Amino acid sequence: MRAGPSQEEIRRQNLGALLRHVHVHGAMSRAELTSALGLNRSTIGALTADLATAGLVSEATPKQRGRAGRPSLVVRPESARVHAWAFSVEVDRLSAARVGLGGVVLDRRELGRPRGLVAAETAPLLAGALKEMRQAVPPGTICVGAGIAVCGMVRRDDGLVRLSPHTGWINEPIGATLATELGAETPVVVANVADVCAFAEHARGAAAGRDNVIYLYGDVGVGAGIIAGGRRLTGHGGYGGEVGHMVVNRNGSRCECGSHGCWETEIGEYALLHAAGRPAASGREAVLAVIDAADRGDARAQAAVRRVGDWLGFGVGNLVNIFNPEMVIFGGTMRDLYLAAAAQVRSRLNSVGLSACLEHVRLRTPQLGQDAALVGAAELAFERLLADPLET
Amino acid sequence: MRAGPSQEEIRRQNLGALLRHVHVHGAMSRAELTSALGLNRSTIGALTADLATAGLVSEATPKQRGRAGRPSLVVRPESARVHAWAFSVEVDRLSAARVGLGGVVLDRRELGRPRGLVAAETAPLLAGALKEMRQAVPPGTICVGAGIAVCGMVRRDDGLVRLSPHTGWINEPIGATLATELGAETPVVVANVADVCAFAEHARGAAAGRDNVIYLYGDVGVGAGIIAGGRRLTGHGGYGGEVGHMVVNRNGSRCECGSHGCWETEIGEYALLHAAGRPAASGREAVLAVIDAADRGDARAQAAVRRVGDWLGFGVGNLVNIFNPEMVIFGGTMRDLYLAAAAQVRSRLNSVGLSACLEHVRLRTPQLGQDAALVGAAELAFERLLADPLET
Repeated sequence: MRAGPSQEEIRRQNLGALLRHVHVHGAMSRAELTSALGLNRSTIGALTADLATAGLVSEATPKQRGRAGRPSLVVRPESARVHAWAFSVEVDRLSAARVGLGGVVLDRRELGRPRGLVAAETAPLLAGALKEMRQAVPPGTICVGAGIAVCGMVRRDDGLVRLSPHTGWINEPIGATLATELGAETPVVVANVADVCAFAEHARGAAAGRDNVIYLYGDVGVGAGIIAGGRRLTGHGGYGGEVGHMVVNRNGSRCECGSHGCWETEIGEYALLHAAGRPAASGREAVLAVIDAADRGDARAQAAVRRVGDWLGFGVGNLVNIFNPEMVIFGGTMRDLYLAAAAQVRSRLNSVGLSACLEHVRLRTPQLGQDAALVGAAELAFERLLADPLET
Repeated sequence: MRAGPSQEEIRRQNLGALLRHVHVHGAMSRAELTSALGLNRSTIGALTADLATAGLVSEATPKQRGRAGRPSLVVRPESARVHAWAFSVEVDRLSAARVGLGGVVLDRRELGRPRGLVAAETAPLLAGALKEMRQAVPPGTICVGAGIAVCGMVRRDDGLVRLSPHTGWINEPIGATLATELGAETPVVVANVADVCAFAEHARGAAAGRDNVIYLYGDVGVGAGIIAGGRRLTGHGGYGGEVGHMVVNRNGSRCECGSHGCWETEIGEYALLHAAGRPAASGREAVLAVIDAADRGDARAQAAVRRVGDWLGFGVGNLVNIFNPEMVIFGGTMRDLYLAAAAQVRSRLNSVGLSACLEHVRLRTPQLGQDAALVGAAELAFERLLADPLET
């Protein structure tokens, strides 16, 4: 229903499209940009000049490759000069990074996270990592903001962490706390870790160029980041993608959320450890130990992996029927489980999924690995820059 | 990643925005359009003149209401002159209509549909209704195309009905068949009936102005039309929204799709009739008879309504966690079931749904009633006109 854009909006859109192109695809010549963006050469030249003046890109003459004529200038994102702060709060670890334009991790810190640490104790740890990294930042750089990935339900309007049962957070304003540390001029965006990983894999990973993707992320809990029609599915309040709380077993165990038989009670960390006879263990290492034991022939561990793999395929089948995605990506411990129990996953998926929904779906592991949450958190911050490059 | 639009694209977008505005909201003055679309008066005047020349809108001086100055001309969609053909293929009925720009049903035909009628027998019935209606069309009218709503899985690329278990259709090219009847110049779009109803309620019904909506449609089978972030969720091939095949009961009955315990085996027509001890009955009338009997105190019917209502709330709870919608609309027999078992639906929804996902969700019945599928099918055809008004 929107009317067409004004000249000023078009210029903003063109600047954003050009900057996004080199941010995602890396350095490329003006000639390549002209063809990729469908704009004429003089427009590309003017846009590039504006972005270069703002310090967001640089231009250089490429090394001659023996072709006649003047070579097309190469446009490069200023990765070292333009950066975002990225943070990730997962059940067992905290990470912080400085990520340059173009998605380059320039610096990073990993911190263990004892389970049970509240937000008031977490924020200073993240702020401490930030202070350390800030000392190494050269003068004259541009910070576009900060992004935080959190394993919990995040309110879209203000980034409040409504509920993160496995970190014990309820209504924690982690974004505001960190903003105090960063200074009022630095915008902070908070989002769910599965959404953030999906965003990263969609921008520059396994799901690049795919319009309908489910990124399943699991550790103790299970959630999904969903790309539908090329865009992130957030839901009304920002809580969309809570697939771990799809009830799959009415007679199942009690879930942290208060319901019974949620999918995460069948495929989360505790489900596997319990089925493997290791109810006292916890953490990613413990999950990997069960998978390793299954690999070495331990019958109980094998049965546990098969059982949980079957439930994994079951829920994926439901989601495939609901979303008709072209790709499902298994992240966090779901990656390890999927790789260990691919036969069970596939078999149950095939029995639950409708054939039309199954015919084009690919099952994949993440391409960005451990960096996905940080790269995605930085993307949250870069979004603002890309929407209006000269305003930021 | 798209660059900004050209002048020609902007003009097309503005023409489409203006025409869509009067198509959805009805006649309004140039002054109102100027403010609604955020364009200046002379642009609105020029756009209106172009649309009027093409015969898509008319302009008239409003009756004076005692205000000084020249009154703003009123722009009206040419509902009687510009129309789409709309068809709906449901389990027990076929409908056909001529729908004017603005969503006005100008003429309609209802035909019973004996269960088991194949596509080759259905198309001639629809074509017959079309021929009858065509005789009453005045000369000089513009037909923008045809839309068909089908209770089945429809391939987005070409409108092939891949599977409609309850009409017995497999790979039926109903769109192509009807296109032969309509003539090559008339474009025909086919879509799933739940998607089409969701589209209609979102354009001009209960979900107008809402960005995240689930329209649940049920008769024998169950499906959903989903609006996420203001846009229709179609999935990769067009099969998104098959929520009736979300398995909710691993120990449940066999489903037509080959799986067991799909949601539709617990809430579809047969589930209710079976639970009420009427396994030989079928059709909407039979469903209404059970609800009526429950209303009159029949204990078995009451138990059946409660049982199915509980499963209805269960699945809605799962969908609310997955999509975080602001509204769920109950259409088809789901409307009757929801109204009869609202307490069970609410109670189970509250036990399955996460509190953050529940806090803003409204449960509603359709506003467009029996017309939704036809109005939505016509919207499919109008979409093309609205995307490029002067090209069609």
